[in-house]
Amino acid sequence: MMAVHLQRPLAAMCCLFLYCLIGVLSSPDPRLREALIELEASMQTGGQMVLTDAEQRLDALLLKLKQEEMSREDFPPAMHFFRAKHLIQTSPIFRLLQKMPKGGALHVHDVSMVDVEWLVKNVTYRPHCYMCSTDNMSVRFIFSSQSPKPLARCSPWVLLENLRAKIVNTTDLDNSIRGNLSLFTDRDPEAVYPSQDVVWDRFEQAFQAVWGLVTYAPVFRDYFYQGLTQFYTDNVMYLELRAMLPEVYELDGSTHNKAWTMKTYQDITKQFVSTHPDFFGARIIFTHQRRANISAVAEAVKEAMQLKKDFPDFLAGFDLVGREDRGKPLWYFRDALSLPAKKGVQLPYFFHAGETDLEGTEVDQNLLDALLLNTSRIGHGFALLRHPVAKDLSRKRGVAVEVCPISNQVLKLVNDLRNHPAAALMLENHPLVISSDDPAMFGASGLSYDFYEAFVGFGGIKSHIGSLKELAMNSIRYSSLSREQQKEALLLWQRRWNTFVTENEFLKIN
Amino acid sequence: MMAVHLQRPLAAMCCLFLYCLIGVLSSPDPRLREALIELEASMQTGGQMVLTDAEQRLDALLLKLKQEEMSREDFPPAMHFFRAKHLIQTSPIFRLLQKMPKGGALHVHDVSMVDVEWLVKNVTYRPHCYMCSTDNMSVRFIFSSQSPKPLARCSPWVLLENLRAKIVNTTDLDNSIRGNLSLFTDRDPEAVYPSQDVVWDRFEQAFQAVWGLVTYAPVFRDYFYQGLTQFYTDNVMYLELRAMLPEVYELDGSTHNKAWTMKTYQDITKQFVSTHPDFFGARIIFTHQRRANISAVAEAVKEAMQLKKDFPDFLAGFDLVGREDRGKPLWYFRDALSLPAKKGVQLPYFFHAGETDLEGTEVDQNLLDALLLNTSRIGHGFALLRHPVAKDLSRKRGVAVEVCPISNQVLKLVNDLRNHPAAALMLENHPLVISSDDPAMFGASGLSYDFYEAFVGFGGIKSHIGSLKELAMNSIRYSSLSREQQKEALLLWQRRWNTFVTENEFLKIN
Repeated sequence: MMAVHLQRPLAAMCCLFLYCLIGVLSSPDPRLREALIELEASMQTGGQMVLTDAEQRLDALLLKLKQEEMSREDFPPAMHFFRAKHLIQTSPIFRLLQKMPKGGALHVHDVSMVDVEWLVKNVTYRPHCYMCSTDNMSVRFIFSSQSPKPLARCSPWVLLENLRAKIVNTTDLDNSIRGNLSLFTDRDPEAVYPSQDVVWDRFEQAFQAVWGLVTYAPVFRDYFYQGLTQFYTDNVMYLELRAMLPEVYELDGSTHNKAWTMKTYQDITKQFVSTHPDFFGARIIFTHQRRANISAVAEAVKEAMQLKKDFPDFLAGFDLVGREDRGKPLWYFRDALSLPAKKGVQLPYFFHAGETDLEGTEVDQNLLDALLLNTSRIGHGFALLRHPVAKDLSRKRGVAVEVCPISNQVLKLVNDLRNHPAAALMLENHPLVISSDDPAMFGASGLSYDFYEAFVGFGGIKSHIGSLKELAMNSIRYSSLSREQQKEALLLWQRRWNTFVTENEFLKIN
Repeated sequence: MMAVHLQRPLAAMCCLFLYCLIGVLSSPDPRLREALIELEASMQTGGQMVLTDAEQRLDALLLKLKQEEMSREDFPPAMHFFRAKHLIQTSPIFRLLQKMPKGGALHVHDVSMVDVEWLVKNVTYRPHCYMCSTDNMSVRFIFSSQSPKPLARCSPWVLLENLRAKIVNTTDLDNSIRGNLSLFTDRDPEAVYPSQDVVWDRFEQAFQAVWGLVTYAPVFRDYFYQGLTQFYTDNVMYLELRAMLPEVYELDGSTHNKAWTMKTYQDITKQFVSTHPDFFGARIIFTHQRRANISAVAEAVKEAMQLKKDFPDFLAGFDLVGREDRGKPLWYFRDALSLPAKKGVQLPYFFHAGETDLEGTEVDQNLLDALLLNTSRIGHGFALLRHPVAKDLSRKRGVAVEVCPISNQVLKLVNDLRNHPAAALMLENHPLVISSDDPAMFGASGLSYDFYEAFVGFGGIKSHIGSLKELAMNSIRYSSLSREQQKEALLLWQRRWNTFVTENEFLKIN
C-alpha cells in the first residue's frame, strides 16, 4: 500500500503539467483528455490499486453488472432503503458483495446487530418474558421470575407465554412486536416518518423496546454471539462495537457491573474466534449518552480509563452517542474529555461528529472539536464537506470517517444517496470506511447493504474492484488494532479475498 | 478584491502552523480552536470581505433573522420549492434579499424570464391568438391573421377570443392555460413529478407551449422588455441571456432571421437602459439544442461566429442546451466546437455541464470536456464535487459555476437543498454565481428566491452579509463583460449596495 502514498507528489506534478497544456493547445487533444480522465480516476478510493488478472476479470463482470443496474428505471441508491431493499436483494452486485470479504465493521451499535426476526422468534418466545405497552405506542420487555413491578406510563405487564396461549393466531402479535423493534416498514416511509424529529423519536423508542430483551443476561450472551454470527455470515471478519455496557440483569432482578459486561463480550468473542478461525475478533468502544450532564460524562470517562487498564487489548476507546442535534456539543464536555490526556492515560476517542445538517450551529462544531480532542476516527462526518478545515485535518492526519449511508438516509439527512457527501469523499480517496450503524433498526444486516449503496450509489460507474478492495483494507488500516495485529488481520483478509476473487472468476466463466 | 488573493498563501501558512499545534498540545486550547474556526470561516465565499460599520449592523440583523429561520419547524430549503414558496415569501430574509442589489443574472433562458401570469393575462388575451390541445396533455399557441394550418397530434385550432366569448367564467380556462405554461403546481410535487423523466417531459412540453406565444414578433419584444423589467424590479442590474434566437414570426406567417432577433434584443436593451440608468445592460449567449446532430451544431457554431462578428459587444458566446442526460456529450461535438479556435476566431463558450447524477457515464465527462474546450463558465456544474480534477481546474482557472438551486431541485437532482453540492463549494469560496435558470417555469422570478436558497440553505448560520456581497460581485467579475465594463458595472453596483446597506440599517433601527 505504500506505493499509493509515494505516488501522490508525482500525481500532483503530473497534474500541474497537464493543466498547463490546456492553456497551450488550441483544440482539445484526445491524449490530454485521456490523461486527465485517468488522473481523476486514479484519485478515487482504490484508484491506484494494482489489480491482479483475476481481479481484472472480476472487475469486467462488475462493470457490466453496474451498467445494467444504472440503466434500471428504479435505481436503488436513489430510493429510500425501505423501498429499495427488495430490489437490492435481487441485484447480482449485492449477492457478489455479500460474498466479498469486507474486512471490519467499525461503526456498529451494541443492540442493533441482530435482525429483529431473531429477537421475535427466539427471544420473545423464551419463558419469563413480560411485555407492556407504553402510552406513546411503543412496548417494553422484561424477563422476571416473578411478576415485575409496574412501569410508569406503561400498561400492566403481561407474560407473553400466557398471552400467546390465549390467542389462536400469534402472527398479528409477532408482527406488532416486530414493528416496535425497528424502524423498518412496508408502508410509505416518507409518510410514516415525515421529519427528523419523528424518525428519531421512533428510533429511540425502538431502542428502549429492544433494551429489556437484550440486557437479560442469557439473551445478552446469545445476542452478541448471534450478532457475531450474522456479521461473520456476511463475510465481515472483525468488529468494533460501540457498547453502552448496560447493567445486564438476571431473572431474579440482580444486575452485573460494566466489568462483567466487558468480560462477557470478551469471553464470547474468544469462544467465537476459536470455532471460526477466519474471524479475527472484536473490540469494544464504550459509549455514553451525549444528553448526559458534565459530571456523568466525567464519570463515564473515568470508568473508560479504568476499563482501558483492565481490558487494554479489548477496549478500543470511548465515544458519546445519541442524537447529535439534541445533545450537548463535544466542546461542552471538553474538561471531562481532557481528563485522560491530563493524567497521561491513553484513551482513544471515536467520536460521532457531523451527523447533522444544522450548519453553523454549536453542534456543527463537533467535527473540528472531535479532531481537537484527538479523535481516532469520526463517526458519520456527514457535515464534513461543509468544514474545509476539518476535512483537511481529517485527511492530513488520517482520521477516517465512518460512513453509514443507510443510517443517514433513514434518519433523514439525505434522500438520494448519490448526493451523500461521501460520494465526493470517495472520489478524492478521503480516509473512510463503510459501516452500517444500526443495521437491525433499518431492516439491513451486516455490511453488504451499505457496501451496495456506497459502491453503486456513491461510486456510479467509476468505482471498481479496486475501490472495494481499498474500502475493505481501510477497515483494517483505520481500525484500533495495533500495527502487528493489522498485519495479521490483513494477511487473513488477503487469503479470503484471493479465494473470493478466483471463485467469482470461476462463477463468471460458468 | 485583490486582497483576497494575496491572503491565500498567508492563510495556507497559518493553517499549517495551527495544524502542527494540535499535535503538540495535550488538551484542546480555546485560542487554537477559535483560530481554526476563524480560518474555516475565512475560507468561505465572502469570508475575507472587510465589512463597513453599516454592513456589520445589517449583518447582525441578518444573523438574528437566520437563527429564527433555522429554528422553524418547516425549514424552507429542506422542502420542495413548490411547497416552500409561500413560506419564503413571508420570510423577512427573503424580503431583504429582494431589495438587495444582486448584480447580474448569468444563467437565465430566453423564454422563461417572465412570470406565467403575465403571459396568461396579457398575451393570451391579445387578438388573433389560437390554441390547440396536444394528445399528450399540453397546448400549443399561434398568432395568425387567418385560420392557421392544422398541427399534427393537436386538436383543431380555436381562436381564444371566440372561446372566451362563449364561456361565462374564464377562470378555469385561464387556470388550465397557466398550468400548461410552467411546472409549478399546488398539488404534491413528488406525486405529480415522480421521476426525472416525467418532470423533464413536462418541462419540455411547457417550453413548447410557451414557444408559440413568445416567438410572435410583438409579444417577443414585449416579453423581453417585461423580462428586463421583472429582473430590474428584483434588483438585478445585468443579464446574460441564453437565447435560442428562434425564427420570430409575424401575423401573416412571415419570419425573421437570427440577425433580426439579435438586433431586436439589442434595441430593447438599449431602450430599457436609457429609461433605467441604474440597469447596466444585457448580453446574449446563443444556444443550440444538444440533441441535434453534428452538422447542425457545426452550422450553429458558424452562425455564432458570424453573430459575434456582427454584434461583438452584445453576443457573449455560445452554449448547447437541453437535457444533458439525453443529449450527446460535448466530446461528440468536439470538431464543430473547435472550429472557432482553428479559424482563430474568438467565440467564448458557456457550456452547461454536470447537470446530471449519472456518475461515470459519457455525459458525466462534460465537465472536464467543457474545461478542455475552454469554457468561460460552467452551467450548473451539479456533478463538480464528483470530479476532483475538473473542480481543481475550474478553481485554478477561475471558471465560475453558475449554480441554480431551485432548478436542480425541481428537476430532481437533489431534494434537501442543504445537500446541494454548492453548499460545499461556497464554504471553499469556489468561483460561483447564483442564478435562476428558468424562473417562470418553476414559479420563481428574478434571482431572489435562488439567493434565498443559497444564503439560508447552502450557508446555514455561517454565510453572512460578506457572502452576499461576494456573490453579487462574482456575478460581475465572472460575467462576459470586458475589464473596463466590469469596473463600470461594479461602481454602479457599489452605489446601489451602499444605499441598500444604509437603508436597511435605517429599517432596523426603526
